[in-house]
Amino acid sequence: MTQKLLITNAAQLITMAGHNDHPAKQEAMSDLEIIENGSVYIEEGKVVAVGTDEEVRADYQDLIGTESHIDATGKVVTPGLIDPHTHLVHAGTRENEYAMRLKGKTYMEIMQAGGGIHATTRATQAASHEQLYEESRKRLDQFLLHGVTTVEAKSGYGLTLEHELKQLEVAKQLDSEHPVDIVSTFMGAHAVPIDEKDNPEPFVNRVIDEMIPEVANKKLATFNDVFCERGVFTPEQSKRILEAGKQHGLIPKVHADEIEPYGGAELAAQVGAISADHLLKASEQGIKDMAEADVVGVLLPGTAFFLMAEFADARRMIDGGVAVALSTDANPGSSPTISLPFIMNLGCLKMGMTPEEVLTATTINAAHAIGAAGEIGSLEPGKKGDVTIFNVPNYLVLSYQYGMNHVDTVIKAGKALVLGGQLQ
Amino acid sequence: MTQKLLITNAAQLITMAGHNDHPAKQEAMSDLEIIENGSVYIEEGKVVAVGTDEEVRADYQDLIGTESHIDATGKVVTPGLIDPHTHLVHAGTRENEYAMRLKGKTYMEIMQAGGGIHATTRATQAASHEQLYEESRKRLDQFLLHGVTTVEAKSGYGLTLEHELKQLEVAKQLDSEHPVDIVSTFMGAHAVPIDEKDNPEPFVNRVIDEMIPEVANKKLATFNDVFCERGVFTPEQSKRILEAGKQHGLIPKVHADEIEPYGGAELAAQVGAISADHLLKASEQGIKDMAEADVVGVLLPGTAFFLMAEFADARRMIDGGVAVALSTDANPGSSPTISLPFIMNLGCLKMGMTPEEVLTATTINAAHAIGAAGEIGSLEPGKKGDVTIFNVPNYLVLSYQYGMNHVDTVIKAGKALVLGGQLQ
Ligand SMILES: [Zn+2]
Ligand SMILES: [Zn+2]
Repeated sequence: MTQKLLITNAAQLITMAGHNDHPAKQEAMSDLEIIENGSVYIEEGKVVAVGTDEEVRADYQDLIGTESHIDATGKVVTPGLIDPHTHLVHAGTRENEYAMRLKGKTYMEIMQAGGGIHATTRATQAASHEQLYEESRKRLDQFLLHGVTTVEAKSGYGLTLEHELKQLEVAKQLDSEHPVDIVSTFMGAHAVPIDEKDNPEPFVNRVIDEMIPEVANKKLATFNDVFCERGVFTPEQSKRILEAGKQHGLIPKVHADEIEPYGGAELAAQVGAISADHLLKASEQGIKDMAEADVVGVLLPGTAFFLMAEFADARRMIDGGVAVALSTDANPGSSPTISLPFIMNLGCLKMGMTPEEVLTATTINAAHAIGAAGEIGSLEPGKKGDVTIFNVPNYLVLSYQYGMNHVDTVIKAGKALVLGGQLQ
Repeated sequence: MTQKLLITNAAQLITMAGHNDHPAKQEAMSDLEIIENGSVYIEEGKVVAVGTDEEVRADYQDLIGTESHIDATGKVVTPGLIDPHTHLVHAGTRENEYAMRLKGKTYMEIMQAGGGIHATTRATQAASHEQLYEESRKRLDQFLLHGVTTVEAKSGYGLTLEHELKQLEVAKQLDSEHPVDIVSTFMGAHAVPIDEKDNPEPFVNRVIDEMIPEVANKKLATFNDVFCERGVFTPEQSKRILEAGKQHGLIPKVHADEIEPYGGAELAAQVGAISADHLLKASEQGIKDMAEADVVGVLLPGTAFFLMAEFADARRMIDGGVAVALSTDANPGSSPTISLPFIMNLGCLKMGMTPEEVLTATTINAAHAIGAAGEIGSLEPGKKGDVTIFNVPNYLVLSYQYGMNHVDTVIKAGKALVLGGQLQ
């Protein structure tokens, strides 16, 4: 039987159409292509028709009132949200460390109490494939409940070939078994192993000589990411790792300029990265380079919020011509949230973005940040039938009624997986 | 038939016991009285037994597995949350004004476009009792979904006797018809009517001579609140209004020192207010006075977050001996959220509070802020059977996994009204 779904009469149907060839920049980030009283028809998982309710409904009258019909009257319909930067696959939580921080403990005291990124590395190394799968699957359900239909997921808590492969294999299994789509990034260069802190070169060589070839050979990742920051990996090391990835078909991404201007944004442009992420301290030159090279700037305001740090200056980047996307950075250390809608609130209230720009940044620009704009990120004929329906009368209310999850319905490839805010 | 409910085996049962006579201050704000593997038994709407699962379960074995049993294994159980400062009853939303602000429009431009508090006054005056009831009822459902079982609600968008009474009557009807309890505050002195801006004295007199006596006579409010701020009501006007309320049995509250140090905190102590609210700019003397006079400081970090302002210094107040409570300040202009759990996140991340303190601030101290600590705010025999169950393994996760609603189950007077995050 043909799988069919008709969504009718949205107060606002935000299509995001027309940004498939290039990520939206500057004024184009405010161009949501809204259809009032809009309807969408999806067949066999793909969008077939998008238009006013009058236009679309006429051709699918037989579906009205059936199980294949969702009435979106009074609601806002958007493309399924896309989270282009997460550390989805990991073991354990670090709320104790967070509580210590709130009580004024220093970074050193927290490290001495067994905290920090290496706590997650130990837990992830110790976890079995099944444990990792189960923890991550629950998180994916939460993403879905918050309107997200595609998630990028990075390795980087394994730090050995065996455990990096384990993380990526869990992501692969989740991609095939969980309805949310996963795009995988290898990030062996997420941290230097704690016992090699003083001499990271052998580790860099293992990433390049052992891990990248094996990950590419097993087709476990599309992207290759590096934490380019003082005390982690230098721009030179980062460049070697990213170039090695390119040799094996892995597209570069960069964790860039989070703590200080360190040349990460410039490097991203130089190696042809698809995105540079964080960018709190990106230099003027770095922003210019990114704009020229069409590198998407993936901003992660949840991390600044949770670490009580300053926020990236999204306004400066958008005005400077960088295509901006937004993401949760979901991870147990610096951003333990799974709510992309809340990240949109932070975009408006903490980074100078507008309600239009945060929608572009979590749909079509997020799709560009993971190289998937041909398939997802907008509602246009031929694209995947991924749709999020919010229980708000207009899209401004998504940002206005802050700190709340307004997701009502989530449709993945034409199937309704969340209805009335509940997993089906 | 006797109404019975048994909640068993919570990973953490946070009772908040032992703070009934005085609001919790300083170290006492971290004293949650947690029972691990805890159970609660509620009968005819009141708490009967609280203890370890072993202790409690033995007496109510016959309820296990019946409809009167909720298994809280792996979850955190707290007293039903209390929101001690809301502008629940009002008409309309102001997302357009918010969008203008994000796009850099000035306060004057927004006012000229019909924005500001007077927009809500016009809408509330124009709304029928039924319209106001329906809008506010939906908001109450949202409060319930966010774990809140008691809400304080202020008038103050009517500004004439007729429309102030209408707001209070809507609150009264909601209190009797909706499961969430409402405690009412008359706040005729919320703003000076726009056409009396230059000469507010006649309006102050009408509040004192016409409104307060009628509100008291009709028993429509417990509290009397004033917006004491430069350009609104002076400390002298505020004092006259609060003293007049006292003559009629209305307990004072004060919107104090939000914009500048203006003597609001001092005034609250002087008139014996039960709470002073906002306090972003409270003076050292004001804080000292409040601590000595047992005035609860109700902090509203959502307002600072939404207005992109600085936050109140909760740490300074708690360390200075003020009993602190937290609230959404839910209102269409400066804080359109209904998520008290998110306000708890802001308490930790923006005001220097600990995960323990934010729980105290939204339960027993919030109860003290509305004079209801004898009935609600803790789980102790004889108190109302108001309970919130969070789907987290320990209470730290409530603050750690920020920006998300972890409410699983909400019980009001022994009845489960929210299950699995859904209204029943
Ligand atoms: Zn990251
Ligand atoms: Zn208020």
